[in-house]
Amino acid sequence: MELAQRNYQTSAAGLETLFAASAPDVISFAGGYPDRSLFPRQELNQAFSRSFTNDDSELLQYASTAGYLPLRQKLAQRMCHDGISATAQDVLLTQGAQQGIDLTARLLLNVGDGLVVEGPTYVGALAAFDAYQPTYYTVPVEADGMDLQALQKILMTKQVKLIYTIPDFQNPTGTVMSLAKRKALVALANRYDVVILEDGPYRDLRYTGENLPPLRHFDTEGRVIFLGSFSKILAPSLRLGWLTASAELLKPLMALKGGADVESSNLMMQGIDNYLQHNDLDAHIQQIRTCYRQKKELMVKTLREYLPDTCQINDPQGGFFLWLQLPAGFDAEAFMNNKLLPEANVSFVPASVMTPGQGPNNGARLNFTGPSLAQIRSGAKALGLSLRAALAKAQLSN
Amino acid sequence: MELAQRNYQTSAAGLETLFAASAPDVISFAGGYPDRSLFPRQELNQAFSRSFTNDDSELLQYASTAGYLPLRQKLAQRMCHDGISATAQDVLLTQGAQQGIDLTARLLLNVGDGLVVEGPTYVGALAAFDAYQPTYYTVPVEADGMDLQALQKILMTKQVKLIYTIPDFQNPTGTVMSLAKRKALVALANRYDVVILEDGPYRDLRYTGENLPPLRHFDTEGRVIFLGSFSKILAPSLRLGWLTASAELLKPLMALKGGADVESSNLMMQGIDNYLQHNDLDAHIQQIRTCYRQKKELMVKTLREYLPDTCQINDPQGGFFLWLQLPAGFDAEAFMNNKLLPEANVSFVPASVMTPGQGPNNGARLNFTGPSLAQIRSGAKALGLSLRAALAKAQLSN
Repeated sequence: MELAQRNYQTSAAGLETLFAASAPDVISFAGGYPDRSLFPRQELNQAFSRSFTNDDSELLQYASTAGYLPLRQKLAQRMCHDGISATAQDVLLTQGAQQGIDLTARLLLNVGDGLVVEGPTYVGALAAFDAYQPTYYTVPVEADGMDLQALQKILMTKQVKLIYTIPDFQNPTGTVMSLAKRKALVALANRYDVVILEDGPYRDLRYTGENLPPLRHFDTEGRVIFLGSFSKILAPSLRLGWLTASAELLKPLMALKGGADVESSNLMMQGIDNYLQHNDLDAHIQQIRTCYRQKKELMVKTLREYLPDTCQINDPQGGFFLWLQLPAGFDAEAFMNNKLLPEANVSFVPASVMTPGQGPNNGARLNFTGPSLAQIRSGAKALGLSLRAALAKAQLSN
Repeated sequence: MELAQRNYQTSAAGLETLFAASAPDVISFAGGYPDRSLFPRQELNQAFSRSFTNDDSELLQYASTAGYLPLRQKLAQRMCHDGISATAQDVLLTQGAQQGIDLTARLLLNVGDGLVVEGPTYVGALAAFDAYQPTYYTVPVEADGMDLQALQKILMTKQVKLIYTIPDFQNPTGTVMSLAKRKALVALANRYDVVILEDGPYRDLRYTGENLPPLRHFDTEGRVIFLGSFSKILAPSLRLGWLTASAELLKPLMALKGGADVESSNLMMQGIDNYLQHNDLDAHIQQIRTCYRQKKELMVKTLREYLPDTCQINDPQGGFFLWLQLPAGFDAEAFMNNKLLPEANVSFVPASVMTPGQGPNNGARLNFTGPSLAQIRSGAKALGLSLRAALAKAQLSN
């Protein structure tokens, strides 16, 4: 039996690293987990109960590939408030935003086709893209988003079909793409006839500063596909996301969704729709923001206190992650596996798994939403002290 | 913007035909819908309520790619009773059996790789396979399953990596693969080093005769992947299926599942697990069997009364479908679109969309589980009379 030549080994290893680093006794800065105490469990229970007892006899039946219409209407409305002009007909419901990545790759990428990703980027996106065997081009992420000069150089010399980006509170660096870069990125996509996949699961989770419009807002040629998700603003286990795109792209995406899993769960879609009917999602998101801002501030403060001077962190304005920059040549993966995890019971995601191929390893993604305040305090302190020891030892042996 | 060269147009058209033929005022023999009055709605409501109020704080959190362990245990046990030796570690939960088809294709098929399908076969499987651009080989379905002589001829002369089959109450013909053919098929797969994808959503739905062991039962070399589904025995809108395979195949399949949609919904898996804890699924399945046997018998009886002599149907022992064989040269698709649907408000799935490429069109799939007894009576009569008229007219013009 010979498997297909899909390069799933690397990204699968990355995902395994994530899960292994999330064992129960470990203070995990590795996962991308929401704070479970924020899940509106009772409200969702009531919503599902109401769905079960309502008079729609089709609740448990096959429904439609596009998804439950009233929920698509509500999502279109939410996107309109966020600068994306959309009606229900422009929305496809998906199994989390992850499926949106998979379907977009399926829509566009032949084997060997050029795909631009940010370096570092979301490891799960690489796991989806790997199945389509693209040729990866990695563009560095700067404090204000992708390095567009590096991008333009690639677009000028290579055949690129798709650019994957997380402009808001990027996974893993927590950075936000500036307004100027958003406009310039869309202009570049127009100029070189490239599709942009805008992954926006953290867009609603800004803790400081002003929201910027999504890339899709500046899209005049129907070449930006926008992905949203309930995972970070309601609960991941609902596994529901959505996608909006021009009709030209949406129609074949729906056909591909049908082949992938027929449709999303009508029960799940109706349950969430019922939650949205009876609850104020924006008020709920405000609660989440308040909690995560506090966690982020504690993480930044504690790290600033304990990290050695040769290590830098950023102070993200939202999202789930901050980025730890380590001295050149430092091997974050070996440090975590040989020292941080066994000695301090603390984990993070090392930079190495977050770029296609062999990327730099002197960085790490730190999640601040999953752990408790107490875990953030002790884990960040332990990380700082462990790094001090490791770097002092490295200096001695130099 | 140039899309990938994936041949999703044909199968997408097939799926669209299915949905169009299911409009509310139509008596649809087209869909693959269960009878909605059989859904255990109250019991599922209670099960989900109990899940929401239990003490598992992780209910709404990310869980694991393989799926909720207690549910995997229960499914392994059910499969053991059905002749498939499996433990929880051998089970992966999927978004319906449909995702199992997609992941298997993703695991095995490079562009152009040989794939054997039954002719005719499940249109949704073609929609999944199309994304991987295989070279299709179609093997006719006989009254006792695949034509194995035709299969062997293909295996001897072509490079084939995967054989897709529905041995029990095949979609669309309703046929069952004989015991002798089951053994011979696995032996052929061993001999030619091919993987078999055994799609078993209807296995539990036998109305007459004795159950035969699944292909996976005869698999000594770990080359049969078995797919199961809750869609037909609980409810389609749960969108939950499962897959079992050898460790060698299961491990990369799990990695691919992670890339496709991270994991299945923990809430959904726990809700179903809770249903299984508190209800007797086999007793529920017995109810379904009783209902569908009655529907099937009425459909067969009515068609036998009204169909012209030149048309044949089979009398399947289980499942969702029976097959209508029409005279050579008859165009089932044109008949449905131009006559049956506009004049009699009855629909079916014409043979043409159920084979890769251009297949014969003188056949149709008739579903007997979705429509009511009254609809079956009047729809089957209308179909018979409409065919009589069409065939008489065709004879006149010859």
